[in-house]
Formats: sequence, structure tokens, C-alpha cells
Amino acid sequence: MRRAVRAWLGRYAPGGVVAVALSGGADSLALTATAVVEAEVVDALVVDHGLQEGSAAVAAAAAAAALRLGCRSARVLTVAVGRAGGLEAAARRARYAALDAARGGVPVLLGHTLDDQAETVLLGLGRGSGGRSIQGMAEFAEPWGRPLLGVRRSVARQLCADLGVEPWEDPHNSAPEFTRVRLRSEVLPLLEEVLGGGVAGALARTAAQLREDGVLLDALAGKLLAAARDGSALDLETLATADPALRRRVIRAWLLEGGAKSLTDSNLRAVEALVTDWRGQGGVAVGGSAGGSRLVAAREHGRLILGPEQSAPGLDGHHH
Amino acid sequence: MRRAVRAWLGRYAPGGVVAVALSGGADSLALTATAVVEAEVVDALVVDHGLQEGSAAVAAAAAAAALRLGCRSARVLTVAVGRAGGLEAAARRARYAALDAARGGVPVLLGHTLDDQAETVLLGLGRGSGGRSIQGMAEFAEPWGRPLLGVRRSVARQLCADLGVEPWEDPHNSAPEFTRVRLRSEVLPLLEEVLGGGVAGALARTAAQLREDGVLLDALAGKLLAAARDGSALDLETLATADPALRRRVIRAWLLEGGAKSLTDSNLRAVEALVTDWRGQGGVAVGGSAGGSRLVAAREHGRLILGPEQSAPGLDGHHH
Repeated sequence: MRRAVRAWLGRYAPGGVVAVALSGGADSLALTATAVVEAEVVDALVVDHGLQEGSAAVAAAAAAAALRLGCRSARVLTVAVGRAGGLEAAARRARYAALDAARGGVPVLLGHTLDDQAETVLLGLGRGSGGRSIQGMAEFAEPWGRPLLGVRRSVARQLCADLGVEPWEDPHNSAPEFTRVRLRSEVLPLLEEVLGGGVAGALARTAAQLREDGVLLDALAGKLLAAARDGSALDLETLATADPALRRRVIRAWLLEGGAKSLTDSNLRAVEALVTDWRGQGGVAVGGSAGGSRLVAAREHGRLILGPEQSAPGLDGHHH
Repeated sequence: MRRAVRAWLGRYAPGGVVAVALSGGADSLALTATAVVEAEVVDALVVDHGLQEGSAAVAAAAAAAALRLGCRSARVLTVAVGRAGGLEAAARRARYAALDAARGGVPVLLGHTLDDQAETVLLGLGRGSGGRSIQGMAEFAEPWGRPLLGVRRSVARQLCADLGVEPWEDPHNSAPEFTRVRLRSEVLPLLEEVLGGGVAGALARTAAQLREDGVLLDALAGKLLAAARDGSALDLETLATADPALRRRVIRAWLLEGGAKSLTDSNLRAVEALVTDWRGQGGVAVGGSAGGSRLVAAREHGRLILGPEQSAPGLDGHHH
């Protein structure tokens, strides 16, 4: 734990002033205890979502533990959680907004462990959008820092026991209606058994490598996108001669910035076929709308354009 | 099935002359039936591994079915399977060697389906070597062609039923001592249930995208390797200023060509640290041996070198 936190601080917070997001659970308690030893100054931020009976008491106990562990300050942030997009997503949004507002310009350390990373990769497997969907969480995505992505959850628990601090057990962590809980309690153990162990670590390593690959591929795609731009359109010739892996990324980024919604792999492949496998096919609806019509990508005069669905050539006022 | 096979032939075998590797199982029978319709000429190759009671009869029946389906020829290739590296691996080696020798210069179509691809990705998850380990099987890796990687196994079975051909059921396909069988019968169904369906397709799409990414990344790494070479060593400055994703690939390729064995992610990271995080640490053993000593990567005069472990500076003849 100490080695992981020290390495993280050396890389991303050389000044040594950080905040820690503390839930009171074992992971964030162990992170707080370690950060106090390794960093210059640690401020604890405890979010009270107000969603469970007694949440205020849990938050107050966590803040008190943070001060006992040696944090310079400990604040409870009380948030109001809406319902838009589902309870989990709404709670997450409210939590990150509150932490961001309270952090005072310094990075916020989060207690996600190697086990959380492995679960995130498995969650992404069901999305099927290549490396992007299974690269897990970033070690640092400003202002959010995750020093424990290489540390097992069991190590954090053990540290709490060694320090004599009592972690709070979130009842959500064992509620089988949450996908993540089933991944943790059913899928990962079965995979470990069938594949002969070491799966969680392997998933975390794979995520880290795919994230490195993704940084490079996104940078290269950014250059290609700049080269292919022709106003709000893309130049077909530039796309046609580009590497397939970059072409796919460029088309994806361009569609998303143009308002495409819930883009699927098959949408993307169909738009790519307008470039690479042109046989007179029509425009491709890409989800989303424009000017009251479906948003459609199409070929026009050597360019790929994105806009409201048009009637057939020889415009006669009909829209369909 | 027909669309998949036609697209494959258009891309990789425009002459339309192919061989099909036929086991007699549903996938390869359905592939054979489809190839006969879509290709000009199809020769069936049936491998008899001689490992199961009655295997000669199974092979003969498959060959007869191939001729009834319209293949120009059908040959049974009898192979002797050794035991080196485990029975499955030995059978695989013997099978591919026999098919390669008999194919007469044309591509050999294999009946691997989307389900096989998904299982291959799951198998790779346990390896944890990034995109490389989960990019699954290639659509075409000369001379091996896999036109059905986007087709569900159930579709192949249905085609056999529609054609009234009786597939052979390999008892290995339900033997729980095989990892692949457990992935198919236990892990994938559980993942589908927990993640809400579509997992096999998502795994296959992810594999295809990672394979495209891998082609580009390997090509870029190849250029960097050429630029970094300094005799049998690598130039540190070139590596230090390179993109991390490419640097890792270059170091990996260089270590493997220098004789490193069963390279792990942590070996690789330790060698990388000689470049990026040099604090006077010693050489890194990379598995494998040279001149009776362990094979070690080390810094020397601005270069990364690979060779037998040396004694400390001020050589005094001791080797340790």
C-alpha cells in the first residue's frame, strides 16, 4: 500500500497535498491511513448521500476516523441525489460534483483497488467497443487519482485490521441486484476457478496496457481527424488511405461531435463502408436527430457529410 | 452463412479455389456446404487423429458427406499425435501440419464461429498481456481462413438441420476437464445472465477491433525498433523519448528475439524501468539463459544490452 501511494504521489502530486474521498469502507480507510503517512497534507472529504437510514452517522464516524488517522481536516459533504438515469448513476454524479467543489484545487484520491478494476473490465466486456470499453479506470484523470489500482482489496482490509480501525460495510456491496456485486461474487470466482487463478490481476494488467495503447491511438487519430477535416465534413480520400484502426476512431469522434447518439459498432462499420466499400448505398442513420429529421452520414462530392436526412437527389420537398 | 463466406472469399480468395478442414462436426459441415455454393472449387480435408475409438469411421463418413455436398475431392489425412506439450496441443500441431502439407497452395477454411472467438477471448483474459492476449483468432492468417467468426454456432447447427446432414458430436466438446468446455457451458452463460446478454458478440467485436489496433501498433513498433537498434543493443535515448505503448512493444520484441523465455508483464516493466526510471538498479533476468548464465537485460554506456549475467564492475571472474 505504502509503495503504491508513494509512487502515485511522486508521479502526480509532488507537492504532497491531496484530498481523500472517504466512504468509511475498508478501501478508502486504508487509503486515508496510508496517504497520511506518505503525503504532506491530507484533507478527508466524506460524502453523505442521504440514501440509507443512518447515513449521517456513518459519515460522521468516517470523518472522526480520518482525524484520528492524522488528516489535517475532515469534512462531511451532504448531497441531494436525484433519480435521472438511475439511482447509482445519479448518486455518482452528485458525489463527484460535491468532491470537485470541495477539493480546493488539489487531487482527490479514490480508494478503487485492483479488484474494482477487474470488475470494471468485466463490465466493459459486455459493451464490445474494443479497447476503449475494457481499459478500466485511469490511475489519474484530473482531479481523480487512484493509487490502489494495483493493490488487492484484501490488502486494504488487512491494513484496517492491523491498524485497529473498523471499516463500515456498505450493504450495497452484497446486494445481488447490482451487476458489480454479481461480477465480484459469482463471475470472477468462476473465472478464477476455470482459468486457474490470477484472473483479477490479469484483467488489471490488460486494462493498464490497453489504456496506454488508447492514449497513443487517440493522439494519432486526433492528427488524422485534423488532416481529414473539410469544414464540418471529412475528406474521403484522406479517410480511404488511412489505417483502419485510426479511420474507425476518427469517424467515431466526428460522429459524436456532430451529435450522433448511442453509436454502435455496426453503425460505425456502416459509415466506414461509405468510405471503403462504396457501392451506391444510401446514408447511414447514426442515432440522434437534426432539424426534426434523423441524423444521417452520407457521401457527397468526395466528402463524408453529417446532417438531417434528405430526400432523394432532385429535391422535391418530400422528407422521409 | 452465405454472406459471411462470400465476403471472405471476395477479400482473400478471389480465384475461388479453397480447401475446407472438415471434422464432421456441425460448424465445419455447415462451412463446407456453404463454401461449395459460394466458391468455384472446394476440396475437403478430413484429419483422423486416431485418438478415439472409431475415429477412422467418423473421418470416412465426413469425407463421404463432403462429396455428397459437392466438394471436388475429399481426402482423409491420418496423423500420428505425440504427447509433447499436452495432448490437445500435440493434436493441434499434427492437424495443422497435415492440413498445410495437403492443401496444395490454396487457403484452408476453418469452421471457427463467433462462439469459438468469444471463448478464445475469455481464455486470453487470464493471460493478462493486454490487447495481444484478447484479440482472438484472425479472419485470415495465411493459409488459415475463418469466414465464420461473425456467425453464431447455432446458425451453423440450424443449417445442418435444414440440409438434413447429421453432424458428428465430438465427445470432447462436452468434457468438463477441458477449460474451453467450461468457458462455453458455465462462464459465458453466467456472463450473459449477469451482463444482460450479447456478451459473445461483444467479445467477438472487441477482438476484431483489438486486432486492427494491434496491426497498427505492431507496425509502428517495428519502425521504432529499427530506429532504436544499435548492433544487438537498443539506444536508450530513442527508447526514453518514445511513446510508452510502443516502447513496451519494442522492448518485448527485442527481448524475445534475444532469447527471453516466458516473459511476464512484470519482467517487461522492470526492463522498461531501466530506461524510464533509472536509479542505479541492477540487470533484470528475463527468463532464458546465455552462455550457461541467466539471460539479463542491463544498461551499459547509453544502451540497453542483453546477455549472460555478469559479475559486478571490476570483473574478477566470479559469476553469481
